[in-house]
Amino acid sequence: MRFTSEDRLDETVLERTFTLGPADTSGPADPSEVPGASGIPGILWTPTSDAAPATPAPLILLGHPPLGLRAMYPRLAARARSAVADGFAAATIELPGAGDRPPLPGAEQARAELRRAMRAGERVDDETVDALVLPLVDAAVPEWRAALDALLALPGIGGPVGYSGGVISVGVRLAAVEPRVRAAVLFAGSLVPRTILEEARTVTVPLHVLLQWDDEGNDRQASLDLFDAFGSHEKTLHANMGGHTGVPEHAGDTAARFFTRHLK
Amino acid sequence: MRFTSEDRLDETVLERTFTLGPADTSGPADPSEVPGASGIPGILWTPTSDAAPATPAPLILLGHPPLGLRAMYPRLAARARSAVADGFAAATIELPGAGDRPPLPGAEQARAELRRAMRAGERVDDETVDALVLPLVDAAVPEWRAALDALLALPGIGGPVGYSGGVISVGVRLAAVEPRVRAAVLFAGSLVPRTILEEARTVTVPLHVLLQWDDEGNDRQASLDLFDAFGSHEKTLHANMGGHTGVPEHAGDTAARFFTRHLK
Repeated sequence: MRFTSEDRLDETVLERTFTLGPADTSGPADPSEVPGASGIPGILWTPTSDAAPATPAPLILLGHPPLGLRAMYPRLAARARSAVADGFAAATIELPGAGDRPPLPGAEQARAELRRAMRAGERVDDETVDALVLPLVDAAVPEWRAALDALLALPGIGGPVGYSGGVISVGVRLAAVEPRVRAAVLFAGSLVPRTILEEARTVTVPLHVLLQWDDEGNDRQASLDLFDAFGSHEKTLHANMGGHTGVPEHAGDTAARFFTRHLK
Repeated sequence: MRFTSEDRLDETVLERTFTLGPADTSGPADPSEVPGASGIPGILWTPTSDAAPATPAPLILLGHPPLGLRAMYPRLAARARSAVADGFAAATIELPGAGDRPPLPGAEQARAELRRAMRAGERVDDETVDALVLPLVDAAVPEWRAALDALLALPGIGGPVGYSGGVISVGVRLAAVEPRVRAAVLFAGSLVPRTILEEARTVTVPLHVLLQWDDEGNDRQASLDLFDAFGSHEKTLHANMGGHTGVPEHAGDTAARFFTRHLK
């Protein structure tokens, strides 16, 4: 992990960009390197030294859709500021196939089929969902885990770790396989492969699931089925009116309190 | 409305019991009297004079199941203390047919049929639901409105009004017909008459709906259908794990913040 820039957003928040993995092959081996991957860009937000607490801050991983970190930056930075204000560190990395990273094999074809089915008002078939989502999950989850290795080795950052938002299937797999993730806020979505629905049954950490009741891109019943499938003893579904991007401000506040309850 | 007792619960909360309506026929006419009804017992919680704010407190009506105020008192008093701590006045009245009030006609027979159907694992038929719920709603809602007339005439209590919990059908009707109710926290239930489901479409105030995901007494899909039916532009569903009485503490906190957002 190499820091590539450092910037104070204000008196309290330090933003550092970093690259994870083997972009630089000349130096000594970096234990956070992901074999075979090119460098993965990421961003870390922490309290500035003036505002840093005496004990290491718990970390929230900020998930996002595969639209590229640059496009997602304003929303990610807003979530990060809010997390740091609540006493957390926050970090995110670019998803495989997004931003400047090489496209995932088969993704373009699956996306074309998705667009065709949605335009035609047809149900997206299971094979297309699998082709669209599984390669992303398979590639992304080891990268987020490698990012965790690197981030938790930094001074000032400690466990436990929360995961928040982004591609629901990435969140499900990560919560299922990564024991350092101790609580997750997930945005219910319906393009969930059947195998991920099975993995959801093995998730046991506390979950806070957000559902937009009139989400034009999601099938409500599929989202409810996914919520039902989670094996967690403590899980809460918060459904709000409106479409995909209409999550009300108070829903964000409630999600923040969920993390504070479980990670602090 | 006549106060029948007055008690300080602590330094900050004053609890007064009252009777609404014509138990005493000798004195001058009381405008809050409910024609034909015998006296309705109720409880009002307000800040003590030491703790009273300069402006009238908004009022939260505390709904409850028809098990009698005496049996419900510990939970009602806890909710009231919390409401007063948040800057509200809180009040409740006995439901028709509950406590020491005369039974509602047909209620015993409908309850027997409900018990029989539930024991047999049968779906409770629409006629039984109507017979069980509609007479209660028809009798209760005018009484809550008369209570509002009397309570809002007291010094120190002002609008807007919130309604919280209790029999879902009473809450739906009250939110639909009473313009002084400006926000409601409702506990989703499935024994909802078809006519109440239709009335739900006419509700437009902000709603915060709690659903216990594994509620042994409720049909989950019927609860989701009711949530979907509400006409309110702002409505939020909070589903938590566990049975009927297992609402977690954080769900109560979130409901309290909903009232603070909408009534203050």
